[in-house]
Amino acid sequence: MRIAISTGGGDAPGLNAVIRAAVLTAINRGWDVLGIKRGFAGLMGEDEVIPLTKDAVRGIAHLGGTILRTTNRGNPFHYPRLQPDGSIVEEDRSDELLANARQLGIDAVISIGGDGSLTIAKLLCDKGMNVVGVPKTIDNDVSGTITSFGFDTAVNTAIEAIDKLHTTAESHDRVIVMEVMGRDAGFIALYSGLAGTADVILIPEIPYDIAKVCEKIAARDRAGRHFSIVVVAEGAFPKGGTVTLIGESLPGQARRVGGLCEPIAREIQRVTGKETRSLVLGHLQRGGMPTGYDRLLATRFGGAAVRAVAEQKWGHMVALQSPHIVTIPIEEALKQPKRVDPNHDIVRTARELGVSFGD
Amino acid sequence: MRIAISTGGGDAPGLNAVIRAAVLTAINRGWDVLGIKRGFAGLMGEDEVIPLTKDAVRGIAHLGGTILRTTNRGNPFHYPRLQPDGSIVEEDRSDELLANARQLGIDAVISIGGDGSLTIAKLLCDKGMNVVGVPKTIDNDVSGTITSFGFDTAVNTAIEAIDKLHTTAESHDRVIVMEVMGRDAGFIALYSGLAGTADVILIPEIPYDIAKVCEKIAARDRAGRHFSIVVVAEGAFPKGGTVTLIGESLPGQARRVGGLCEPIAREIQRVTGKETRSLVLGHLQRGGMPTGYDRLLATRFGGAAVRAVAEQKWGHMVALQSPHIVTIPIEEALKQPKRVDPNHDIVRTARELGVSFGD
Amino acid sequence: MRIAISTGGGDAPGLNAVIRAAVLTAINRGWDVLGIKRGFAGLMGEDEVIPLTKDAVRGIAHLGGTILRTTNRGNPFHYPRLQPDGSIVEEDRSDELLANARQLGIDAVISIGGDGSLTIAKLLCDKGMNVVGVPKTIDNDVSGTITSFGFDTAVNTAIEAIDKLHTTAESHDRVIVMEVMGRDAGFIALYSGLAGTADVILIPEIPYDIAKVCEKIAARDRAGRHFSIVVVAEGAFPKGGTVTLIGESLPGQARRVGGLCEPIAREIQRVTGKETRSLVLGHLQRGGMPTGYDRLLATRFGGAAVRAVAEQKWGHMVALQSPHIVTIPIEEALKQPKRVDPNHDIVRTARELGVSFGD
Amino acid sequence: MRIAISTGGGDAPGLNAVIRAAVLTAINRGWDVLGIKRGFAGLMGEDEVIPLTKDAVRGIAHLGGTILRTTNRGNPFHYPRLQPDGSIVEEDRSDELLANARQLGIDAVISIGGDGSLTIAKLLCDKGMNVVGVPKTIDNDVSGTITSFGFDTAVNTAIEAIDKLHTTAESHDRVIVMEVMGRDAGFIALYSGLAGTADVILIPEIPYDIAKVCEKIAARDRAGRHFSIVVVAEGAFPKGGTVTLIGESLPGQARRVGGLCEPIAREIQRVTGKETRSLVLGHLQRGGMPTGYDRLLATRFGGAAVRAVAEQKWGHMVALQSPHIVTIPIEEALKQPKRVDPNHDIVRTARELGVSFGD
Repeated sequence: MRIAISTGGGDAPGLNAVIRAAVLTAINRGWDVLGIKRGFAGLMGEDEVIPLTKDAVRGIAHLGGTILRTTNRGNPFHYPRLQPDGSIVEEDRSDELLANARQLGIDAVISIGGDGSLTIAKLLCDKGMNVVGVPKTIDNDVSGTITSFGFDTAVNTAIEAIDKLHTTAESHDRVIVMEVMGRDAGFIALYSGLAGTADVILIPEIPYDIAKVCEKIAARDRAGRHFSIVVVAEGAFPKGGTVTLIGESLPGQARRVGGLCEPIAREIQRVTGKETRSLVLGHLQRGGMPTGYDRLLATRFGGAAVRAVAEQKWGHMVALQSPHIVTIPIEEALKQPKRVDPNHDIVRTARELGVSFGD
Repeated sequence: MRIAISTGGGDAPGLNAVIRAAVLTAINRGWDVLGIKRGFAGLMGEDEVIPLTKDAVRGIAHLGGTILRTTNRGNPFHYPRLQPDGSIVEEDRSDELLANARQLGIDAVISIGGDGSLTIAKLLCDKGMNVVGVPKTIDNDVSGTITSFGFDTAVNTAIEAIDKLHTTAESHDRVIVMEVMGRDAGFIALYSGLAGTADVILIPEIPYDIAKVCEKIAARDRAGRHFSIVVVAEGAFPKGGTVTLIGESLPGQARRVGGLCEPIAREIQRVTGKETRSLVLGHLQRGGMPTGYDRLLATRFGGAAVRAVAEQKWGHMVALQSPHIVTIPIEEALKQPKRVDPNHDIVRTARELGVSFGD
Repeated sequence: MRIAISTGGGDAPGLNAVIRAAVLTAINRGWDVLGIKRGFAGLMGEDEVIPLTKDAVRGIAHLGGTILRTTNRGNPFHYPRLQPDGSIVEEDRSDELLANARQLGIDAVISIGGDGSLTIAKLLCDKGMNVVGVPKTIDNDVSGTITSFGFDTAVNTAIEAIDKLHTTAESHDRVIVMEVMGRDAGFIALYSGLAGTADVILIPEIPYDIAKVCEKIAARDRAGRHFSIVVVAEGAFPKGGTVTLIGESLPGQARRVGGLCEPIAREIQRVTGKETRSLVLGHLQRGGMPTGYDRLLATRFGGAAVRAVAEQKWGHMVALQSPHIVTIPIEEALKQPKRVDPNHDIVRTARELGVSFGD
Repeated sequence: MRIAISTGGGDAPGLNAVIRAAVLTAINRGWDVLGIKRGFAGLMGEDEVIPLTKDAVRGIAHLGGTILRTTNRGNPFHYPRLQPDGSIVEEDRSDELLANARQLGIDAVISIGGDGSLTIAKLLCDKGMNVVGVPKTIDNDVSGTITSFGFDTAVNTAIEAIDKLHTTAESHDRVIVMEVMGRDAGFIALYSGLAGTADVILIPEIPYDIAKVCEKIAARDRAGRHFSIVVVAEGAFPKGGTVTLIGESLPGQARRVGGLCEPIAREIQRVTGKETRSLVLGHLQRGGMPTGYDRLLATRFGGAAVRAVAEQKWGHMVALQSPHIVTIPIEEALKQPKRVDPNHDIVRTARELGVSFGD
């Protein structure tokens, strides 16, 4: 039996722990393991396949990043090819990929990735490749699993940042707007904001009115709380407007990281008259050593993925349904992305504590 | 409406976050909140009741310990009284407690505690006091809730310790035996041991044979891995024997913290000939700043407890049944303590990774 | 004997430890201690003076921020006053300040602050106030002291950030430009960059050429090191040009935090063709719990300041001249600000390790 | 030019950063670098010499432990040899060591170690080997250098532990006795105790009376401070007595780690009647990721050691004399070990803050 492991998409703390667990358990079963570098593209004639021995994965469980790198070269079904005239056309190179996998003697692939990689994994599975998925989503936006590795680390990084900003905000009577990851799902903002005792939390799932945000800050000021912390998810656009915020047209610029918190900070300062600063956490959330929670979850995912291969659960992915790791069809997980439920007890508790969502 | 909050038993990171959340949400409902110091004993005429205002709970969410202190003076149903002759007799002072609570105008009590405090809470509830419970168990041994606050922090503290010992063990070709909390439940040892990549994990739920532990270490040595990390729960006694370990009689001494890992270390050194050191983590696991996970969970528990009071769920406790916080009857949670299931996927994954449980 | 303590200027981890140490040692001498809120402005009839008892400073040694707040209302020698027509004129209110201090029975003031606050302290001293200074500079730009509290914490925060970015940069073949504090002095960038194994370090003291930065990154790429970390101090402008960088006019915008690293990142991406991201650490460096080094130094400063008061060292400030705390005239410290010496062994070691300073 | 690097003695965070810096700067000079495993013993025909390339030292600056291992096999001047009858005799194998070094073409050795390794280094230097030393002392007991790498990390680890114990001690009205490293020098206890706000600090340099320790704790109790933290260095024996403490004979047992704090805790409990717990930090202080301070210092030491080789400073070691790295003769550093000066300002500040040294 020979399996291969690939990681795709952005960085997430815990990737190496998944790889280590999968490699050790597979080798302990007497299997052979290959590592495919740079996502599935590593299987397309680019010489990016390496043997994964026990020695190769020693001492990596607590390291951030991934020993397999994760820069995707592209979707094998729509692979970019440079034309002589400089233009780029996309072509379907999936057959070549499958042929290469067969030639390498690969019996099954464990694909660790987010919705993009899992979609490709499912399509390759439909074409006959034996694939098992491991969900990787730092935003926690993949359905069917309570959470995935990396998310707890990102939340803790965000909370530590809020803690640090808190003392300065309080000592200096300032408003600080901090932007965290979450293009479509506001879990990091919600979890870190509530645990970090933010005063305002803005997430994509709850459209907000910037005037209400300012009113909350002004009300705190009047009550003798001269500082405020605002946590905003990168995709949390104000009500009505992907179009205008504060008299500026935003959509283009704001779709990049950090585009949102600066205009929000400026508007708060303009309306409330309070000194307001902004900070974009950015890639700090994706890096570094995974928390204990993520190391454990990643290790369990790695072990469960190998068991899923042994049980020939092709087209399935491992998932946490506490307290158990289960397997579910990849397509079921992809059917609908996970979003914050505005009626969830976390949102309710936050509101009851006095947190404003700007709505 | 006037409620009171009490915390009982040992320290657990997150206690202050529960108190803060309960106080703020209760006051936001227009309620009045009292804090009872030192467990229920604070209600027995000892002048240990303080008002809990918003100011009293500001800035405490991330602090370890509890602003209400937790040294229990004793069980009100079996309260110790010193006799003139120096002996101690126990008496039932629960009626006095209830009378005092009535006199203070307390309509309901939120009792944060482990199985001991929850049992008392249930009995007081049966006598007519309006009580809602919040489970506090750093060992994760209370049923009905996926976990409680403090456990994730303890696991992370243990993992950090393993990480630190790892480099020294490896550089110096040593065996290190580290004892963590867990008198009856081995969750901390299992979680931290697996995430921290320990080589041997010894827990109360899986009786072990010290000879097999030594054999595992010797086998690693022969394979060129000249160091080993053993994580042992404080209540993990070897097979057969609460009676003898390594020719010593243990039960008496070993029942105290740290009693177990030293004789295990000595036996490993004797049998394998390898330099072996021991370390007892002890109270480091109970203190300090809670992790993000625990701060969030504690905050949710505090908010949910106030909602449970509003809904008059007397005799119930809040519990995490991911992804929701629910309420369950306290007696249901106490019926059977939670233990590590030897067939759980975490144990299985650990075994498949090559971890020995000494069985 | 009655003394007063004031803190001025920006936040620095360790402020509370200085205050605690000064208060406890002063009270243990039988003295009385007042706290002046919001810098010296607190002494100008704005009712911002509070008694500092032992209870007031318990448990604050490890907390960031300052219990005395630090938002300066203004320089008492040039105090802003709003005119009826809306314009602002400055007036010298130092006599009023001194009179208020006398009326409060203040025998001496311990002034904790950076060059701005220390300059005011010296001027007040010249007018007859008994002042002892404690240097506070997170940038490490005050002469006469090896370092001050807060700097070690800021360096550690920056290193942790580099560590986190490192794994992502390496996994994704990216260049990451991180901006740290240091408007005029590059110590944070130099120390964190060298300890964090950055590839390029840009500081105000070493004028650089952006083309050489790009060449360094390209050379690494050719050598198979497909990622690079660039650490830039906020005041590190390229050679020739405070005027233009990359065809943009910078001085205005760049003088705000974060103004520098984005254009540098864009230029690197343009020239090298490598995906480049930027991150501004900003206020994360000023907040949070002080490191052990800073807690110890701050505590020593607080104790030494009280001894300096007892010895009537008016117009002096405490300073670290390892391994001792000494006192030096404030004016001596202010004569010349501290800057990175381009010939210092730290710079030399960095160069010999292959770090580029872009020169 | 070919140099070799060896590390000897116990673990210290920062060892890998020294190795990395020395290797990179040496290779950048065009030199060749070998690594000698397991101290000088690696040069005695045991095949423990490996090439140290740039690749071998990538990404290790922040890792604890040492890639060269540090278990010393023995002093080459008194090397143990097992006799046929089972007894052990020591022999001088230094000539063999020198011959092997010559045969390997080693022009100079950088020896990283404590007083033991540095003494051997000096003796080998006297016999003609070109040696430069790098001091390694987690206890900070080597003279001539303000500090060495690893010490700051150990102090921070101890402070974090005190912080964790603090909340539990305070919540539970307990006394906690924590033992830290420091057989002969009390720097870790003094620094961590003062920064961690311990109430009692016991160090080898200040003989103490256990009765005075108890009186301090009782006085705090009477003043309403019902908990106390005692930090004790492992070699801090009470006055009069290496012979008896609390009616027990100690010398034998106490000379091992952890031998001291348990009897001290028992005696405090007996005398004051307060619940008292003990904790031995042990190897947690030697492991893990170095702090920023230690990473920087270790890197500077590594670079400076290579420069010292280039300047043929045989028999010298690098040292921190803030703000510079200098070189001093090894024998000068070894002449007199460094101890806490009981009149140092740190001790004085601690006393003025109310800390008891039990004297």
